[in-house]
Amino acid sequence: MKVAKFGGTSMASAAQFKKVYDIIKADGDRKVIVVSAPGKRYKEDTKVTDLLIAVADQFLATGNADEELNRVIARYQEIADDLELGPAVMERISGDLHALLTQDATDSARFLDAVKAAGEDNSAKLFAAFLQSQGEDAHYVNPRKAGLLVSDEPANAQVLPEAYERLNASLRGRSGITIFPGFFGFSQEGVLVTFSRGGSDITGSILAAAVKADLYENFTDVDSVFSVNPNLVNNPKDIKEITYREMRELSYAGFSVFHEDALLPAYMGRIPVCIKNTNNPSAPGTMVTLERHTVAETVVGIASDGGFCSIYMSKYLMNREIGFGRRVLQILEEEGLSYEHTPSGIDNISVILRDKNFDEEKEQRITDRIKNELQVDDFAIERDLALVMIVGEGMRRSVGVSARATAALARADVNIEMINQGSSEVSMMFGVKAYDADRAVIALYEEFFGESK
Amino acid sequence: MKVAKFGGTSMASAAQFKKVYDIIKADGDRKVIVVSAPGKRYKEDTKVTDLLIAVADQFLATGNADEELNRVIARYQEIADDLELGPAVMERISGDLHALLTQDATDSARFLDAVKAAGEDNSAKLFAAFLQSQGEDAHYVNPRKAGLLVSDEPANAQVLPEAYERLNASLRGRSGITIFPGFFGFSQEGVLVTFSRGGSDITGSILAAAVKADLYENFTDVDSVFSVNPNLVNNPKDIKEITYREMRELSYAGFSVFHEDALLPAYMGRIPVCIKNTNNPSAPGTMVTLERHTVAETVVGIASDGGFCSIYMSKYLMNREIGFGRRVLQILEEEGLSYEHTPSGIDNISVILRDKNFDEEKEQRITDRIKNELQVDDFAIERDLALVMIVGEGMRRSVGVSARATAALARADVNIEMINQGSSEVSMMFGVKAYDADRAVIALYEEFFGESK
Repeated sequence: MKVAKFGGTSMASAAQFKKVYDIIKADGDRKVIVVSAPGKRYKEDTKVTDLLIAVADQFLATGNADEELNRVIARYQEIADDLELGPAVMERISGDLHALLTQDATDSARFLDAVKAAGEDNSAKLFAAFLQSQGEDAHYVNPRKAGLLVSDEPANAQVLPEAYERLNASLRGRSGITIFPGFFGFSQEGVLVTFSRGGSDITGSILAAAVKADLYENFTDVDSVFSVNPNLVNNPKDIKEITYREMRELSYAGFSVFHEDALLPAYMGRIPVCIKNTNNPSAPGTMVTLERHTVAETVVGIASDGGFCSIYMSKYLMNREIGFGRRVLQILEEEGLSYEHTPSGIDNISVILRDKNFDEEKEQRITDRIKNELQVDDFAIERDLALVMIVGEGMRRSVGVSARATAALARADVNIEMINQGSSEVSMMFGVKAYDADRAVIALYEEFFGESK
Repeated sequence: MKVAKFGGTSMASAAQFKKVYDIIKADGDRKVIVVSAPGKRYKEDTKVTDLLIAVADQFLATGNADEELNRVIARYQEIADDLELGPAVMERISGDLHALLTQDATDSARFLDAVKAAGEDNSAKLFAAFLQSQGEDAHYVNPRKAGLLVSDEPANAQVLPEAYERLNASLRGRSGITIFPGFFGFSQEGVLVTFSRGGSDITGSILAAAVKADLYENFTDVDSVFSVNPNLVNNPKDIKEITYREMRELSYAGFSVFHEDALLPAYMGRIPVCIKNTNNPSAPGTMVTLERHTVAETVVGIASDGGFCSIYMSKYLMNREIGFGRRVLQILEEEGLSYEHTPSGIDNISVILRDKNFDEEKEQRITDRIKNELQVDDFAIERDLALVMIVGEGMRRSVGVSARATAALARADVNIEMINQGSSEVSMMFGVKAYDADRAVIALYEEFFGESK
């Protein structure tokens, strides 16, 4: 049995619906289908999810969002018309969408979750109707009835452990094709809660683990995951095989093909993941597995992510002071900040963190606390840093990767602010100024993937 | 005013005493002289401090150490004879040494401290007598009377803050030449306590800071500090200028020319330190200062130290777990272990520590606690690691140092287990297997100091 998830562009139009249907038909094992809300049909188009957010915003602001709602209905209507579906399904979808605005909107976060989720939910209903119109034994399944239990955190739901068994019981034995809306589940109290944005990948991964699928196929609009951001390099090398760990490190550093949180359920269930292209299904795609066979390629991908900052402090004989580092981390924890790395010298330590939660007020408080409580000699905060990562299993066992990487960065005149290597066997990390990040990525790509290599 | 400290080889014989006297005579500013116990006269010789430790051990074991004590007395006697000093000083020294064995030996740590300290104390008395015999206005000064107050930790005394003012008051205004024994002070209760081994350097540094000396001269038996261990490289480059910070990093990584703890008082008092050779006093030596003028030389020294180990752990989505790193450090702290560095990946962290305090019992307890309390996925302990350091001010601002270093290590087929760069502006640190350490140091020396560079 395979679980296949189709993203927004795969569900954007009737033509795309047909491609998805062809893909399902081509492999009888594709029994559980997870769908996103209709995405963009062309570059300037608006995704249904964004239309729905506009509905919710408008309704919360003025109490009326008929115009915005009609735009959403029109998107589904266009697909239904092009697929020549009867009126029944659109009556159901339209009724469903109008009902959204009759519910209690006092809690705006819950209201927003409910409105956003309608994008996937009705996409699933419409797609099931289409398959039925083609004579398929296909059925929409509601996440609540199926047992997709999640934590009660609006826009950030986490799957609950008991969901797996319940989903297994309700999905595993079903005949025909199950069409399942992505992106949301229900709390123990039966309240709808969404995952973070892009969370249909997560739904697919949970279902794949729950039904112990042989494969989780994640259909998107690229042939494969690339070894580097294609906006930086022309025709970058594609990745045929990648391990969960490598994928996780690349996601961390900004690779957005696959939702970062979607990896965990598949990893825990040891379900291989294949990232494929709805528009070119014969392309082999990228396989994500526990181990990869093409180990000869030491480096699998290069990525960078901005938005980091560092807190530097030094104190003479710091390394004699038992508990110093622990106290630094304790202060950050008490101020609600998580950190990423702590490179250290003998008498100094830097803490690298993402600066999105590190506002000026927190900066002031942490500065005061570290200076007063830890009596440091020097203290400095540096913003606008980027982390550049080279990712590949077995890199650590390969003499010379760091030599090649640092030489490439030196040739590109990139000053290395930080090197962090030694714990992960799968990656090497360089801290650079944000304005050097793209140049660093390109230089490293040239070194490890360039023509002459 | 200058404080000059003379080490064990400088005080090893009558001939050496004369050299020291010549050095003092050559500069009228050398007013405070700190002396070590007589050291080795030739390679197979035994230091007086080691003879004294044998006295204490034998006495504690059998209640009689006359034979061992006579060997100590003979060393002083030989010097006194060769200098043709009258019998008075040796009567005093001999009486002093015999009196050691009449004191209470119940507390063996205190007894050992008192016996060891006699080496420096009598060296100072003998040297003062020699200078007086030459017509100098020179006087032995007792650390207790002078106010060298230290903490009550046998063999590991730390200077107390109030010592500085008291030493200043008792030494600053003295006429003539002060001869001061190194290596020990007295607690608030008047009990003799020694510094850690080699602690005469510390005494000199404390006195230099106390009297606000223009210079602290540390006379030893090498012309200067070398940029690399001379046992590994023939005729290594000498260091003419080095900053406190650089010196501290090199000391940390095994440079033993100057006692690590001796740097702090000089640094705090901003007293420049000059390391010179008693046997070749016209050589300029190595100056240790706050800033160095020869900044063009990016790398000042290369060193390595063994005896490290790493504790590695990984846990999927570790970086989302607020407080994870802090809890790791807390466990180590609760088990009384201090750590050196914590390189980290995204879902893994390594803790590097010196393995001398990390015995099997502690290893077992920490393994259990980390596995149980932190629920890690993987856990491993690796021993026999060495840290190799490249030290130099301004290195961080220099593009390409890491490229040259990693390339040199790759050429020498050294696998880099860890790179830690980014916090210290003065050093770059590589973790390697202990058996690779010497090869790594030689390769780095060749790269940064080799003939063709």
